[in-house]
Order: sequence, then structure tokens, then C-alpha cells
Amino acid sequence: MTAQVIKGHIVDAPALGELKITENGYLVSENGRIEGIFPELPEAYHGAPVTDYGDRLFMPSFADMHMHAPQYAMLGMGMDLPLLDWLNTYTFKTEARFKDTAYAREVYRALAKEMIDNGTTRVCAFSSLHRDSTMVLMEEFEKAGMTGCVGKVNMDRNSGDILTETTEESMRETRAWLDEASDKFEHIKPILTPRFTPTCTNELMAFLGKLAQERNLPVQSHLSENTSEIAWVKELHSDCAQYWESYAKYGLFNERTVMAHCVHSDERERNAMKENGVWVAHCPDSNINLISGVAPVRVMMNEGVRVTLGSDIAGGALLAMPQVVTSAIRASKMKRIQTDWTDEFLTVAEAFYLGTTAGAKFFGANGGFAKGDKLHAVVVDDSAFPKTAKELSVKERFERALYLMTKRDIIAVYSDGRKVK
Amino acid sequence: MTAQVIKGHIVDAPALGELKITENGYLVSENGRIEGIFPELPEAYHGAPVTDYGDRLFMPSFADMHMHAPQYAMLGMGMDLPLLDWLNTYTFKTEARFKDTAYAREVYRALAKEMIDNGTTRVCAFSSLHRDSTMVLMEEFEKAGMTGCVGKVNMDRNSGDILTETTEESMRETRAWLDEASDKFEHIKPILTPRFTPTCTNELMAFLGKLAQERNLPVQSHLSENTSEIAWVKELHSDCAQYWESYAKYGLFNERTVMAHCVHSDERERNAMKENGVWVAHCPDSNINLISGVAPVRVMMNEGVRVTLGSDIAGGALLAMPQVVTSAIRASKMKRIQTDWTDEFLTVAEAFYLGTTAGAKFFGANGGFAKGDKLHAVVVDDSAFPKTAKELSVKERFERALYLMTKRDIIAVYSDGRKVK
Repeated sequence: MTAQVIKGHIVDAPALGELKITENGYLVSENGRIEGIFPELPEAYHGAPVTDYGDRLFMPSFADMHMHAPQYAMLGMGMDLPLLDWLNTYTFKTEARFKDTAYAREVYRALAKEMIDNGTTRVCAFSSLHRDSTMVLMEEFEKAGMTGCVGKVNMDRNSGDILTETTEESMRETRAWLDEASDKFEHIKPILTPRFTPTCTNELMAFLGKLAQERNLPVQSHLSENTSEIAWVKELHSDCAQYWESYAKYGLFNERTVMAHCVHSDERERNAMKENGVWVAHCPDSNINLISGVAPVRVMMNEGVRVTLGSDIAGGALLAMPQVVTSAIRASKMKRIQTDWTDEFLTVAEAFYLGTTAGAKFFGANGGFAKGDKLHAVVVDDSAFPKTAKELSVKERFERALYLMTKRDIIAVYSDGRKVK
Repeated sequence: MTAQVIKGHIVDAPALGELKITENGYLVSENGRIEGIFPELPEAYHGAPVTDYGDRLFMPSFADMHMHAPQYAMLGMGMDLPLLDWLNTYTFKTEARFKDTAYAREVYRALAKEMIDNGTTRVCAFSSLHRDSTMVLMEEFEKAGMTGCVGKVNMDRNSGDILTETTEESMRETRAWLDEASDKFEHIKPILTPRFTPTCTNELMAFLGKLAQERNLPVQSHLSENTSEIAWVKELHSDCAQYWESYAKYGLFNERTVMAHCVHSDERERNAMKENGVWVAHCPDSNINLISGVAPVRVMMNEGVRVTLGSDIAGGALLAMPQVVTSAIRASKMKRIQTDWTDEFLTVAEAFYLGTTAGAKFFGANGGFAKGDKLHAVVVDDSAFPKTAKELSVKERFERALYLMTKRDIIAVYSDGRKVK
């Protein structure tokens, strides 16, 4: 028998706005795959080893659906600068340093540990354009216990002097990277990553679209983050009525595509995302730090667009996904103010769903603690939080934990059925 | 000789938008009072004991100019509720528990430690209406090394059943509290605290105004936080053209008054604040969590209104003032979006000024590390932050530290000349 039993207060968000709570419940898994959640342990599992987390909270771990791994090195920096100065002063220079694999190793090892410590077990990450360091990132994520996708960035124009590749280099390096990386890691897989339309020639885009189809690969990029970017894309692709079409015309806009931001996506663009099954990575802290605007998350969700959450470090300054979840709540409240109290804000349960189940679904999971999913979870010890005036329900403790927990309160993390912290 | 020398990278914000940086500098104090900052140690102090903080950052500590101490017990809770439900479900019930001084002792001791650990050394705090527990709060703040003001809350109407006092009780308890508290503590002094206009009868307001004048006491309250509150005050005080006048007519609106929020203060109200020398406590996280709107901080500052920062726990869910400082930056960027990119956002240097010097001035300090001020400072060790792509300037390290530092990175705290952490 390979069953494992975990005991604790089990909380998950199987559907948007729905919280499922099993106090002093049992989660049973077999070979790392969830069998079920039970208020009483079924007899069939009475012999299985039990990990008893006592009075702690046991909940799904987080999915960071958009982040720039090399920018971990510049977390919290340059926040006073306009986007273009920020890119030139910090971002491109920082990413250029990842030509050095030893430096990459050091940063990526620390990053992977920090993510696991903070309860992130699923990720869609941009690396830099460097093939070798992209392999280092995949390796460090794999070793730390992460699961998900990493992309070598493609950028063959409009990228400055120090961080660019020729079209030929970009294609060659991408092919070589895929040959090496596709089957090398059990939990970390490649994702095609055109940085964004302005930095990719049509030839490169066409190449990537073909590759996506041939090798059945997922795709990640940026869409409609700010208005000057949108105007720029319009200039570059005068044949496209909207930004998204510059991806769609090359086959880079479908149900395996994650598009970050979508701050200024209007009804037509949102409809295209919905029709094509595209996934949105909403990055609330980045939206605000870079003064991009706030993505119309509530409207997107009402329309049936699939929304997930991303830290977008280092446009975002928060790597810890619980903080990104509460940042999404705060951004939604700002959006409510901005829309003159029209758009409803995200409840704690909704934002938690976006930060866990919504992202997990991109990777083929059912989300929450659904039967058949591999176990991805965090254990939160809230005993160091302030002493409350009354005894709290598990639901209240859960809500508070989302606002207050730091990595020190996350005492255990499970990823793909394995205990990784 | 009672001189003390501190060595490190010294950063302060003596004026709005101005950062003063002395790399590997010396800060000299005598009897806890700052003598000066020097790039080289003057000969006169060569015999004085030196505390060498090496490569660490040495900067002013923070002033939290608006917070509800008992609400520490409900930090991060009820964030999905509308204001009125939030008050009834959590706030009033939580505060009512502070009738129990043993409970108050436990919560306030933890709160005081947490504030010092996070680098807050100056405070303007609301207690609850309970006199005994207010004394406990003052005592715990004093013991932990805090400085500033604490107020027994006055609320004799519209406060529900479980947390109210009669007018007579309120007056009697306030007098008794002042008699006991005024000279009892060296660093913590009383401040008159009408909760806000709707919860105080005219008789009580008149009493408090008279007391403020007789005993030369500072005052704190709330002003124009949300639109329904403003409408309510208008009903209660039909003789007042605006909310602020309900304080002003009782002598509770002057250069020793701190008014929290001022989210919806229009030009006339802002002008009244300026003319009367009133201090605004801007509480960015609370503004957003409670969907009040965002106070027009840039406009206020341009007009010459004195703005400081407050955590406003537990409307705010962030007690750590470095996080409140970056929350103020984020809120200002939201305000920039909301005003269609008209209002300038707060730079890191400006927000740091608001969180340190601006608050210190309320207590009579010159702010920054001005000569003659008592030393209030934190020492930040940023060596655990991500490894950057290049060596950072002290200014860059300072900016990053504001975004990333937690209490674990704050390795020492000075308050009123004493080392308290």
C-alpha cells in the first residue's frame, strides 16, 4: 500500500468563489495523487501512515503564472523610473548578466528556494535569451521541487545593444534548447517565449508559431500592458486591427497560451481571448508599480476569460504568492474605485482561487484538492499571529492567513506529491 | 563625555523629495541627542565609543500616525465585508474585549514588540474606550521603547450596544485617565480621541474641546473617510457646511490635531486644514481595503497641507511601516491612474519622508537626522536580499530595502536615543 494520510484543517477553492473546508479532516493520496478528503478516515486507509498537522491549515499551494526569473536579481529596484528608463537602467542590464551561468546558478538557486519557501509550486517563467542559463533555471527549479514551464526568451529586434540576438541565432538556439530540454526534467518543461511583439521580427514569430505546432508546445508572452506599447504594435503590424492578432496570425494565441497583463484589452480583444481559450496572467503589483493601469479582471471573469495570477517580478516587487493574492484583492478594490464603484472587488476566496486552482488548470489539473490531481499543498501555522478577541472559525483563520502569512508561517510544502519543504 | 558614535551608510530624508546619503559616515550623539553626521569622525570624538554597523544602512525609524491598537487582534480579518458589517462583526466586538486588562496586556505587549521589531518608534494610537486598558497600552508602549501619544477613545452615541459609554461616563473616565496618565510615562503621553463626529454628542465634543485648551492637549480623530460618513455628519451638524467644522467649532481642529484619512476632502476642506495647521494621517492600505477611495496626497502636499502616514490597523492590514510606505507609493500610482495620469506619484524618497520626518515633526522634532533631535533610527542589513547583477549604490540599496525589508532585516532600532532592539 502506497497511501499517505494527511490530517489537518483542509481548505481549498475548487471553483471561483467557493471555499471547501474540512475541519480536522483527512486528505488521502496514493503515489502522490489525491484520493479524496474525508471528515473521518475511511477504514481502507487505517493502516496508512498519517502525517498529523494538528491545528494547522492545509491548503493548495500557489501557481505563479508570469514571472521573469532573472529579474529576481533586481527585485524592488528602480520603482521611480518610467517603463523605458526602468528597462534600460535595470532590466536589460540585469538580464544581460545571465550570459554568465555561474551567476545564473547562484541567483536561480536562491530564487527557487524562495519560491518553494513561500508556497509556490507551479510556475510559468521567462528566463533570459541565454540558452545555457535557461537550462540552469530549469535544473534549479527541478531540484528545488518546482513544477511547470520555463522559456528561453526570443528577442531579435528593438532590444538595445546588450541583450539581443539575430533572427538566425534565436532560431538556432531555440531549437538546440528544445532538443536538450524537452525530456531532460521530469517536472519542468519548455514553453515558447517571444518576449513581446515589438522585440520579435515577423520571421521569428512565424518560426515560433510553426515550432509550437510541430512540437505541440505551450506559449507565453505579453499583451496590452500599456497604451504606448499598444500603439507601437499597431505601427509594426498595420495589418492587425488589434495587438492580439500579431500573435494569432502566427498561431501563437490558443488554449496553450498564457498572456501576461491584458490591462487595456477591450471587449473585442477579450472576446478573442475567450474564443481562443487563451489564459490571462493578471499581475496586480506590476500593473500598479509600472502605472500600467489595472486589468479588468472582474469583467474578464464575467465574460468567461480564463484568469490566473502572476508575480511578474520584477515589475512586481512581491515574489510571495500569498502577497500577490492580496495584491489582486487590493487592485480589484482600486478598480472598483476607478469604475465608480461598478466593478465588484475580488473576495478572498475568489483571489485565492485565482492564485491556486486557476493556474493549476493550465497544467491540466482539476484544481483545488480534486481527486486524481497530484498533491500540491502548503501547511500554514498561524499560531504566531495576534491573539484574537474570540475563537476563530477555520474560514476566518484561512482569510487572515492569506493576509498575514510569510514564509516562516509556511511550515511544509508539497509539490507533485512530494514533500519539498 | 557622553558622546556616542555610530558608523554606517547613513541615509535620511530631511525634506520632501530630498535624500541625504553619507557613505561610511559617522553619526554622533550626546545624551541621545544628535550632534551631527560626518564623513570623517571629528577629532573631538576620537575617544568616544563607536558602534560600527559596517556595510549596513542606517536610517531614521518610522512614525505611525494613525492606528487602532486593539484592532491588532483582528489584523487581516473581515476584508470582504462592507464597512458597517466589518465594524459590527469584528471591530466593536474586538474592542469590547479590552474591558479585560489581562487580555489587553497580552495583545498590547505583542503589538509593542512587533512595532519596535519593524522599526516604528513614534506613534499616535487609538486605544479603546476603556481607561484601564488604555493605561496598559501606554505602559506596554513605554516599556517596549516606543514614544508618542495614546488616546482613550470617546464614544457616547451611535456605537452599538457593546461598546459605548454615557456622556457622563466618558467625561469622568477621560478626566480620571488624564489625571493618572499625564505625567506617569516619560515617552508616552495622552492625546484626546473623539472617535469621530457621529459617535460623539455635542456635549462631549464641547467638553473635549475645553479640555484640550485647558490642559494643552493634542487631538486625534477621523475626517472625510468615505462619502456616506460625510453625509451622516452633514445630517448631524446641519449648521456645518463641511465635516471639518464639526471639529473646529469645538476647538478640536488646530496645529496639534491629527486627522486620519481625508480621502474626500475638497479644496475648501483642504484649505481649512492648511490654515489651521492640522496634520493629515494618510492611511493608504486602509483607503484601499475599505474601498474608501485614495486620499489626494499629492494635491494636499502641493497646497501645503502637512501629510504624514498611518498604518490604520486593522482597516489597514500592514503594521510594518516600511510596507505602509510602499503602500503609499502604490496608492499614489493608483491615484495617478485614477486621475488619468495627472497627479504625480510619490517617489521612494518622498514616501520615506512621509513615513519618517513628516511624522516626527508632529512631535516637535526637526526630522531626518537633524542636529538637536533625539536619535530615532533603524539599522538595515540587506545582505539576505537577492544577489544583484552589479554593485549597487547606497541610494539603490536604500530604495530596494524599503520594498523588501522585513523585521528580520532590521537588526537594530534606536528610539529617543536608546537602543531598543
